[in-house]
Amino acid sequence: MPHIPVSPHLPGITGLLEYRQDTAEPIRALTQLILRGPGTLTFAEREMIATVVSQANECQFCTAAHAAVTDVLLGESETCELIRADVESAPISEKMKSLLQIAKQTQRGGQYVTESAISRAKNAGATDLEIHDTVLIAALFCLYNKYVDGLGTALPDDPVYFQHLGERIAVSYGRRPEGYEKPLV
Amino acid sequence: MPHIPVSPHLPGITGLLEYRQDTAEPIRALTQLILRGPGTLTFAEREMIATVVSQANECQFCTAAHAAVTDVLLGESETCELIRADVESAPISEKMKSLLQIAKQTQRGGQYVTESAISRAKNAGATDLEIHDTVLIAALFCLYNKYVDGLGTALPDDPVYFQHLGERIAVSYGRRPEGYEKPLV
Repeated sequence: MPHIPVSPHLPGITGLLEYRQDTAEPIRALTQLILRGPGTLTFAEREMIATVVSQANECQFCTAAHAAVTDVLLGESETCELIRADVESAPISEKMKSLLQIAKQTQRGGQYVTESAISRAKNAGATDLEIHDTVLIAALFCLYNKYVDGLGTALPDDPVYFQHLGERIAVSYGRRPEGYEKPLV
Repeated sequence: MPHIPVSPHLPGITGLLEYRQDTAEPIRALTQLILRGPGTLTFAEREMIATVVSQANECQFCTAAHAAVTDVLLGESETCELIRADVESAPISEKMKSLLQIAKQTQRGGQYVTESAISRAKNAGATDLEIHDTVLIAALFCLYNKYVDGLGTALPDDPVYFQHLGERIAVSYGRRPEGYEKPLV
């Protein structure tokens, strides 16, 4: 039962963005820029960051939603499952592993981001902007996770809800769910 | 030493907002709305929420900055010091104590916000919107704190820096540091 009267038809973040629409606007704008704007990290890579941070914060709504988007963008669900189980042994690049570790350290607390994690990312070819964006995506999902759970929003129990949500969000990336990932820029 | 090349003259959040200006815009817009926009919580009360959350996240830059703003808005520094030491015995209303506890639970994790903390706030006269805004301010400062510390930004060692910053921010609330708190609406 949500702590405030949000629409019962709008679970998780969706009801909150409807509840206070003026604050929803810059939250949506920031998300659009950092997840779906120009950048050298692929859209799927940015969604992986959102997923691992949401999972670390134990936010079931955001974890299910962004894992679903990642799956749609990659066209398979195994990679995201393996990342969620263990970043280091997942079938992703060394750069992406290092950025996901920075994201996880940021989730724990900004002061836990280590010099060695930053060096590892730079050695693996991560740019300063990619490191910046990784930390900002992690910080943004801490906002989302705490907003969604702090107000006790509803969690749909039908996995089809998240599959459809993932497809809807993936379309907003400028690609059809059935196609290959194609950056907007 | 910051993890990315931000301007050495711009410590804490200030260098990050300069580093990536497109994402800075919605972050500033959200902050302006939720901290300085129309609302029934006073500006000082909203700054108290920002301060206790930043302190719980151990973000020295944000804690010093928002404690300084609170002090300027209240015209004294004792109240904020007492809140930072112990919310329950601080000289603030029961409603404000209950909202600060919700903010602290949100900082720990959204799922830690208890029904009893929400009931306490409602019994003390907090509106649904005040509860919403408390959680969103807490969530926003988790973003700020993790962004600032996750990128290893500089912390000024001169307390005068924060006093001046507090005065500059307080002026943006539509009041002079030397005047009484006067909401914009």
